[in-house]
Amino acid sequence: MSGNVRVTIWNEYRHELKDEAVRNIYPQGIHAVLAEALGTEFAVRTATLDEPEHGLTEEVLNETDVLVWWGHMAHKEVQDEIVERVYQRVLAGMGLIVLHSGHFSKIFKKLMGTSCDLKWREAGDKERLWVVSPGHPIVQGIGEYIELEQEEMYGEHFDIPEPDELVLVSWFEGGEVFRSGCCFKRGLGRIFYFRPGHETHPTYYNEGVRRIIANSVRWAAPTGDSKPKYGRYIPSLEPIKDKGSV
Amino acid sequence: MSGNVRVTIWNEYRHELKDEAVRNIYPQGIHAVLAEALGTEFAVRTATLDEPEHGLTEEVLNETDVLVWWGHMAHKEVQDEIVERVYQRVLAGMGLIVLHSGHFSKIFKKLMGTSCDLKWREAGDKERLWVVSPGHPIVQGIGEYIELEQEEMYGEHFDIPEPDELVLVSWFEGGEVFRSGCCFKRGLGRIFYFRPGHETHPTYYNEGVRRIIANSVRWAAPTGDSKPKYGRYIPSLEPIKDKGSV
Amino acid sequence: MSGNVRVTIWNEYRHELKDEAVRNIYPQGIHAVLAEALGTEFAVRTATLDEPEHGLTEEVLNETDVLVWWGHMAHKEVQDEIVERVYQRVLAGMGLIVLHSGHFSKIFKKLMGTSCDLKWREAGDKERLWVVSPGHPIVQGIGEYIELEQEEMYGEHFDIPEPDELVLVSWFEGGEVFRSGCCFKRGLGRIFYFRPGHETHPTYYNEGVRRIIANSVRWAAPTGDSKPKYGRYIPSLEPIKDKGSV
Amino acid sequence: MSGNVRVTIWNEYRHELKDEAVRNIYPQGIHAVLAEALGTEFAVRTATLDEPEHGLTEEVLNETDVLVWWGHMAHKEVQDEIVERVYQRVLAGMGLIVLHSGHFSKIFKKLMGTSCDLKWREAGDKERLWVVSPGHPIVQGIGEYIELEQEEMYGEHFDIPEPDELVLVSWFEGGEVFRSGCCFKRGLGRIFYFRPGHETHPTYYNEGVRRIIANSVRWAAPTGDSKPKYGRYIPSLEPIKDKGSV
Repeated sequence: MSGNVRVTIWNEYRHELKDEAVRNIYPQGIHAVLAEALGTEFAVRTATLDEPEHGLTEEVLNETDVLVWWGHMAHKEVQDEIVERVYQRVLAGMGLIVLHSGHFSKIFKKLMGTSCDLKWREAGDKERLWVVSPGHPIVQGIGEYIELEQEEMYGEHFDIPEPDELVLVSWFEGGEVFRSGCCFKRGLGRIFYFRPGHETHPTYYNEGVRRIIANSVRWAAPTGDSKPKYGRYIPSLEPIKDKGSV
Repeated sequence: MSGNVRVTIWNEYRHELKDEAVRNIYPQGIHAVLAEALGTEFAVRTATLDEPEHGLTEEVLNETDVLVWWGHMAHKEVQDEIVERVYQRVLAGMGLIVLHSGHFSKIFKKLMGTSCDLKWREAGDKERLWVVSPGHPIVQGIGEYIELEQEEMYGEHFDIPEPDELVLVSWFEGGEVFRSGCCFKRGLGRIFYFRPGHETHPTYYNEGVRRIIANSVRWAAPTGDSKPKYGRYIPSLEPIKDKGSV
Repeated sequence: MSGNVRVTIWNEYRHELKDEAVRNIYPQGIHAVLAEALGTEFAVRTATLDEPEHGLTEEVLNETDVLVWWGHMAHKEVQDEIVERVYQRVLAGMGLIVLHSGHFSKIFKKLMGTSCDLKWREAGDKERLWVVSPGHPIVQGIGEYIELEQEEMYGEHFDIPEPDELVLVSWFEGGEVFRSGCCFKRGLGRIFYFRPGHETHPTYYNEGVRRIIANSVRWAAPTGDSKPKYGRYIPSLEPIKDKGSV
Repeated sequence: MSGNVRVTIWNEYRHELKDEAVRNIYPQGIHAVLAEALGTEFAVRTATLDEPEHGLTEEVLNETDVLVWWGHMAHKEVQDEIVERVYQRVLAGMGLIVLHSGHFSKIFKKLMGTSCDLKWREAGDKERLWVVSPGHPIVQGIGEYIELEQEEMYGEHFDIPEPDELVLVSWFEGGEVFRSGCCFKRGLGRIFYFRPGHETHPTYYNEGVRRIIANSVRWAAPTGDSKPKYGRYIPSLEPIKDKGSV
């Protein structure tokens, strides 16, 4: 069934164009590497900031089951109208996978209701992501941990609501910890925040990281439920006494 | 210690002025009745929509430990700037008690990250609020349930994130249920949503309802923690190998 | 993939043999009706209390992905050794669906760590199970609620730990509410408690009830993870300074 | 009000008697040091394994608001009858603070419903406990983290149910992480698991550790609620139609 899951990978796609070191790692952009990783299982397309409507037209979103989001230096350039469009789609059931610096994206902050702030250090710390919820579908096929030789450090406190499920916790060489794999539900939509993926490290080539992202896409895919009904609700399901005050 | 808790009760205060039936129940406004209920234990002040800055100046908020919020017909008139101010205060630790139709207030929706939509019916249903978390401080002194002879019905699905703790669930005469007492944490702030309180019923005179609101104020009062540090974090706490790529 | 899920339906199978009214509803036992309901999608077998080892031999459990449990009048007759065997399998990843009066089974109480007590009344109350988590896989295909014309009432407080996810809440004609669909995780295993199914009502013929049970089996099926490693863990993953005190 | 909280500190008290290195750190036992730490604020008594009924008579427990538990080498010697007694008291509202190796105590495993297993290494790792829920009463007055120069390492996976609230996460020098401060509710009782405190290190003299334990006692103290009613519940609160089948 996962062959039918339609994934849109959204990437800011600025670092790769401006910075040679990043381009050397991701010559066609982070989205291209993620598309290659997910394309073997899902129906994948990509979208980037500088496309019209950031590549996220009504049509594209209506055909998207799970949206993957990578952004960093240009969060502010994402138009509020598009953020609202993505937001409504998540509440209606679209899955959302937020990667790394996407913690500060407008869409993630809007869905969390918090600042999503954290500590950070670009010093190439070793990172070890420990599984704290073995048996969870998102860590299927992952052993006890994933090790990344060099990554940007993110440290607590991470200002998010208590996750519905905490799946991974990171250890950093420099002495910090971080809740690295966090599940949330908003409306009908499932959201997974996954920490790794700084643009100056080849993280999205790592097999474990790719596996977790693929697992999370499968987990976040909507179940095809109809929309709940809201608003005025008359008549009552059970007879109620006439009370005059109505 | 609760004698030192500084409470600001915010009320839209429009229904009472426009509608005689409401004014008959709350002649000085809902805020006045809540102030009377909470004033025996806490240091209480009130604020209303039509005051300058809605009565929620920087100074007032800085002196507020817990903010109680009742609004309904004029959610849109609350200025975004004031909403942002309240929001920042909650993240910094101020408690927030959201009552009844406040589910649709800008501040509650912003903190939840969802639509906060629900079903409703104004037919004077009997409501029975069952305690599902006995031993929780918010239901201290409440028996097994509170019964309200007439209330507006709110029905599921209530579009909120899964509460951190669910304390009360309502039964309605007309056949619906509702998660009526919900705890959340956002940043350093504790938030309690409490369902009852339609303006055409004398709900805020009910002893059980008043007790729950007072309990929730005590529960939501900040613990005086210092603010976490966010942002660039150098140097590392542990020595890390020089990796060149920094 | 769900065609490969191996389900064992365990039924106490006493009421049906002793009580003609129950036998008229479930002539071959509750397990037979559930087996018929689940057999179209899963590889189903059944087991009952009075079989050797209650039908739950090591071999049977090793070949079970999800165990469905219905018991009531003879909880005490379930041998502790078999309970321990089921318990270890759940921690190792087997799914467990606990139905109705199974709330008082030894295995459920052992996994919850609480009394699992509740209120009850056999008066044929109408029950309406409201979906409070639309979009959850367990309520896929269910609309806003399921209605059962007559059921035993179960009322709060239900003495369980706060569920990891609350999916359904029941309304009862006589004035009570109940958390009717509750998700838990213990070790690697997923557990779903589902309230309806008193033996004197034809509840397991209801299409909605059957659909929820089938959905929950799919949701609870293990993901095939390897077992985490516990115990003494030497050497460290990172070099640590010799500290003499070891 | 916390001056009225009655605390019983239970200690196995075997390591201190058998092992000179431990006795040098805790000459009168771990319980004596904890009693000294908590005695400035609470009404404290102590109890140990080798007292009659392990010092936990019905009378002592009935006069205990919060029980602190440290055990390690003799978990099996704790009588099941006493475990059951403590268990019933927790469900009835007594707070329970489980320290360090108490993760494997009978009472903690019974309340959790899981194996409570973990990884461990006695190598004097540096431990840094990071606050992941600032503003929580249990970390009041604690800054961003507590640092312990030498401690036993505990590593994930820690086989517990998802905590109701996760307050602290540990970083270990040797490369592991651990959920070190975990809140649970069982029945009416609040439970806090707090990791540090290996007998060969002077951990319970650490100011931050002592402060967290004191905070947790205050947080876990019962709120004096009456007991919920369970069992047969007749008549109904609302009139129900006579249905014959009763």
